[in-house]
Amino acid sequence: MTRYQHLANLLAERIEQGLYRSGERLPSVRALSQEHGVSISTVQQAYQILENLQLITPQPRSGYFVAHRKAQPPVPAMSRPVQRPVEVTHWDEILTLMEGRTKTGITAFGGGQPDLSQPTLKPLWKELSRVVQHNVNEILSYDELPGRRELREQIARLMLDAGSVVTADDLIITSGCHSALSLALLTICKPGDIVALESPSFYGTMQMLRGLGIKAIEIPTDPGTGISVEALELALEQWPIKGVIVVPNCNNPLGFIMPEARKRQLLALAQRHDIVIFEDDICGELAYEYPRPSSIHSLDIDGRVLLCNSFTKTVAPGLRVGWIAPGRYYDRVMHMKYAASGTNVPSSQLALAAFIREGYYHRHVRRMRQIYQQNIETYTCWVRQFFPCGICVTRPKGSYMLWVELPEHVDMVCVARELSRFNIQIAAGSLFSASGKYRNCLRINCALPPNEKHRMAVEQMGEAVNMAMEE
Amino acid sequence: MTRYQHLANLLAERIEQGLYRSGERLPSVRALSQEHGVSISTVQQAYQILENLQLITPQPRSGYFVAHRKAQPPVPAMSRPVQRPVEVTHWDEILTLMEGRTKTGITAFGGGQPDLSQPTLKPLWKELSRVVQHNVNEILSYDELPGRRELREQIARLMLDAGSVVTADDLIITSGCHSALSLALLTICKPGDIVALESPSFYGTMQMLRGLGIKAIEIPTDPGTGISVEALELALEQWPIKGVIVVPNCNNPLGFIMPEARKRQLLALAQRHDIVIFEDDICGELAYEYPRPSSIHSLDIDGRVLLCNSFTKTVAPGLRVGWIAPGRYYDRVMHMKYAASGTNVPSSQLALAAFIREGYYHRHVRRMRQIYQQNIETYTCWVRQFFPCGICVTRPKGSYMLWVELPEHVDMVCVARELSRFNIQIAAGSLFSASGKYRNCLRINCALPPNEKHRMAVEQMGEAVNMAMEE
Repeated sequence: MTRYQHLANLLAERIEQGLYRSGERLPSVRALSQEHGVSISTVQQAYQILENLQLITPQPRSGYFVAHRKAQPPVPAMSRPVQRPVEVTHWDEILTLMEGRTKTGITAFGGGQPDLSQPTLKPLWKELSRVVQHNVNEILSYDELPGRRELREQIARLMLDAGSVVTADDLIITSGCHSALSLALLTICKPGDIVALESPSFYGTMQMLRGLGIKAIEIPTDPGTGISVEALELALEQWPIKGVIVVPNCNNPLGFIMPEARKRQLLALAQRHDIVIFEDDICGELAYEYPRPSSIHSLDIDGRVLLCNSFTKTVAPGLRVGWIAPGRYYDRVMHMKYAASGTNVPSSQLALAAFIREGYYHRHVRRMRQIYQQNIETYTCWVRQFFPCGICVTRPKGSYMLWVELPEHVDMVCVARELSRFNIQIAAGSLFSASGKYRNCLRINCALPPNEKHRMAVEQMGEAVNMAMEE
Repeated sequence: MTRYQHLANLLAERIEQGLYRSGERLPSVRALSQEHGVSISTVQQAYQILENLQLITPQPRSGYFVAHRKAQPPVPAMSRPVQRPVEVTHWDEILTLMEGRTKTGITAFGGGQPDLSQPTLKPLWKELSRVVQHNVNEILSYDELPGRRELREQIARLMLDAGSVVTADDLIITSGCHSALSLALLTICKPGDIVALESPSFYGTMQMLRGLGIKAIEIPTDPGTGISVEALELALEQWPIKGVIVVPNCNNPLGFIMPEARKRQLLALAQRHDIVIFEDDICGELAYEYPRPSSIHSLDIDGRVLLCNSFTKTVAPGLRVGWIAPGRYYDRVMHMKYAASGTNVPSSQLALAAFIREGYYHRHVRRMRQIYQQNIETYTCWVRQFFPCGICVTRPKGSYMLWVELPEHVDMVCVARELSRFNIQIAAGSLFSASGKYRNCLRINCALPPNEKHRMAVEQMGEAVNMAMEE
């Protein structure tokens, strides 16, 4: 992090904590420069950032003042989904969302694409070029069934950071996390089975359940601490649930990191009821805290956690490289990979293996964590500024998704339709429920660089929401 | 085709037809040169080919003579599989086969890899390089759900050659033909359902059924004309069969092309019993005849044929680009793609679209047809030469697979194990049956260039078979 960013964060924190009150004058540039032993221009840059975030306002010849702002909106309460297994619906809306993704000129706040514009990604396509030129025979041939060993070795090393001790032989490469999870579900479940999951949950996961004929039971989930282990226990006593899908680290869409103790509780519950845990760690590496939070997989002693992951969010979706650490189900998942999906593209794997081995991956992820954390701050400010009072907003601990809850009567499905006319795409909350809940919520993809264009789009979003409020 | 190849084929045909008998003297080089209006050296090159194929032998100062050879072995008879639905077995043997594929130094007659060494493939990796350098943002981003439109447009054009009239909007790109078929099966069937298929059938297809919990009923199949429509009808009257999987063009492993009339009969039967046809056309473009044979899909009027295909055999497996034309099941297959496999790798698709658009694809496939036809001739000669009497051998009409049937008591599973000690990998026939039949058969991948090394490997194969015969 640069010095001025560090200073800006420090000041922003003090403002949030109320050390500087609304309307109060901030220390002069000179005073801050002396206090922190940094240059005048560093302080000026830090103040510029805070001004952009509209945390402070300059007054000519008097200095900087804490801006008059609405109070920090509260975090949404624990969710209260329908407490019985249901069939997932809403496919049409998701198809519309997917189609919007590739429309030219669209501002896509609704999808899940990461920021692909950073220079730290450059070594990746250099590696891709190198692979295409020097490994022709390998990239044209069939891949090994479990995927390229050199990549599995690198992934095993990465997984140590999350506390998981595995070798290349415990891992199976898949076509993204999506395919990892679908292989896991196909291995464990058959049509008609019931699987529990957090509520709200990523729409892709829920459509997967629908496609495979599996029923979903949505479990109350706290935007700060994750799935309610207590509610899950009640559900397990009532229904023949095969497993639970969780995104415990940098959850999509809520952004929480499950506290370690809750992870242990969840695992103990799974052991008591002999169910499996499908752990989706796709954004775990994008946690703002260091070291990154541990996976539930790292606590697993009897191989009941099937860890699914990919480089989709950390590197790039177009590579289609994910993996699964299927614990005691290794042989069955391997067969299912052969049966249902077949082998993978070797070129992406070879390029990624080199990207990690040469240290580019870690550099890139470090940078993206910072960028996303700053983006989330900026977008939160914008939402606070442009959206009406009475909203709740999550405080993500990682990744780049913001979840906004509006008053009960606001219909974000209508707002989304309205905004699409202006080429602004958002994901209404109902996509994240199997039973059509959360129509009054939305998820915003904050990987879109916080520039003027995107600020104006959030402003327009706010106007549409304000209009819907008044209806 | 070059002149000398044309001439060699003509002479080989005459020998096969008995116009030149065993031991008979062939026309002199000069006479042939005059008869066909070609140069002396063209005739010499043609004779050289026939000599390599051991169809003729030179005698110093007397010219060329038709070689003394065993009689052309007969074609295997119609298969007689178990006539009831069974669960597919033999996964362990297939895993061993897959693992062998990437072992260094192995001669892999058992797998399905095409010949990737031809110069007509060069433009493909040039296109790949170009895409990596000039379309960075596209190759890193999420693909469109149905796949890249520019590729679907090219595929729609290719499909016209097989008589199918479709547009880009009727097609869904998949990760190879394997994934196309698995999406089709997941869409139509649920665990416990029964699907009919040719016997023998490609082991990958059968393991897919096993993985998805679908029972297989193997239908008697003629190595010349394909699946017995009559036997299928009997099975349909007896069992609740959901659909039938067929590879009607350049069948794997038998190499037949179903006559057009049989294709129509099969479709009419499917209509009468209201079942779907899963048509695998993966080698249809590699038919030796011109124009290529039509697909059953091209005859379909009510959208019950789900055509699955890919560029795996015609271009390269490592690209992982296939497609499905799912007829009236388009919406459901699209949802299943989103549910079970997710999007595809954009880079392969962009490179392939350019490869086809610029005419490189057609040039490459034309060349490969010729090469494979010559390879099949050569390998057939070798098998005739090195294998014992009493065998049956298929006469493939396209692609590069040869199926050899040995006397009942020969156990090719044991022979395969024996040969693997010499780094020679073969696929025993039992892999191609759901019920363990065809242990006395083997499939040989004739895409391996017919050089001295491979001739010696076939010789060693023959020795191992001879030893097994005597046991």
